[in-house]
Amino acid sequence: MKPVDYPEPFGDLTRELRRLPGIGPRTAERIALWLASSKDARPLELAKVLRAAAENLRACTLCGFFATQERCQVCQDENRTGREICVVEQATDILPIERTGFFKGRYHVLGGRLAPLDHIGPEQLRIGALLARVGNEAVTEIILALSADVEGEATTNYLAEILAPLGVPVTRIAHGLPAGGGLEHADPLTLRQALAGRNLLRV
Amino acid sequence: MKPVDYPEPFGDLTRELRRLPGIGPRTAERIALWLASSKDARPLELAKVLRAAAENLRACTLCGFFATQERCQVCQDENRTGREICVVEQATDILPIERTGFFKGRYHVLGGRLAPLDHIGPEQLRIGALLARVGNEAVTEIILALSADVEGEATTNYLAEILAPLGVPVTRIAHGLPAGGGLEHADPLTLRQALAGRNLLRV
Repeated sequence: MKPVDYPEPFGDLTRELRRLPGIGPRTAERIALWLASSKDARPLELAKVLRAAAENLRACTLCGFFATQERCQVCQDENRTGREICVVEQATDILPIERTGFFKGRYHVLGGRLAPLDHIGPEQLRIGALLARVGNEAVTEIILALSADVEGEATTNYLAEILAPLGVPVTRIAHGLPAGGGLEHADPLTLRQALAGRNLLRV
Repeated sequence: MKPVDYPEPFGDLTRELRRLPGIGPRTAERIALWLASSKDARPLELAKVLRAAAENLRACTLCGFFATQERCQVCQDENRTGREICVVEQATDILPIERTGFFKGRYHVLGGRLAPLDHIGPEQLRIGALLARVGNEAVTEIILALSADVEGEATTNYLAEILAPLGVPVTRIAHGLPAGGGLEHADPLTLRQALAGRNLLRV
């Protein structure tokens, strides 16, 4: 009696889904079951958009944000100033900043952060391209907006050092109490950073 | 200044991924980012297996398990007896039972369980097909292997009632202490079922 297994198309689908980040074997099987048997599932539509993304999506040659042409929407927009460059880890970090409506400059996507344990050093990030931009464009401020964790901090410090010789002011976004956050819920490190970064109130 | 948004291929991909079960907006964005920019990602391979699954995968006309032909691997296997039918909720419940190596009969996939709040009644499940099978085949036992939760229990009780007139013994899998489970970790309901289902030890 041959051991019972899923037919090939189902097994293949489960295996490919399991490769996605954050998807374990059980979730992969559950999604495959849904795709294979639910009336709401649109496997062909998903296949179509995957193909379209693989074929049409590229990184903006200047900043690294998602683009369908050589330049992304932000870098094409002549109403935005190229004098302020906000450095982020990933392309998906740009929209959260855009939603604040606060920043009118341009971006630079590093494509990750320094992580020696994962063999991600400066060469793996778009740091050379950042230095070139600062040299070519009339940049007046570089804002580092990286994660507030150990690797993000290490990357921020590394960039601050390597950018210093260029003579352009380098700032980083503030760390402190999140909006709506009560002091009783703040962890000691956040509170320490909120205290260290305290601002003078002018009345 | 037009609000910045993802280019269409990325937005489309995120939206389709968000429709998958258990995938929230953040996970969808993370997976889309990975698919669009990671060297390890194989978006075209995923598109291919999705298409293959959509085109080649079907439900076995007899039991409802995944098949690529009219009958699934289990129903095609002449070494397996059709006299015992094990009723499960979903096609993915079959492999866990197969892995025990204990059951040599055939299966019947209900395609879900009774859930009045989700508008899933007996008509939405493959219950008519089960009754027809019991009528057509020389069935000697129907084993109900549904979930041990409220909806699974309700479905088990409903099936037991509706199958009773056919005169075929209907059993259900045991509920009790899981293998390796200490009494101190067992919840009261499990322990109650373990006590109620106690077996006489013959020495």
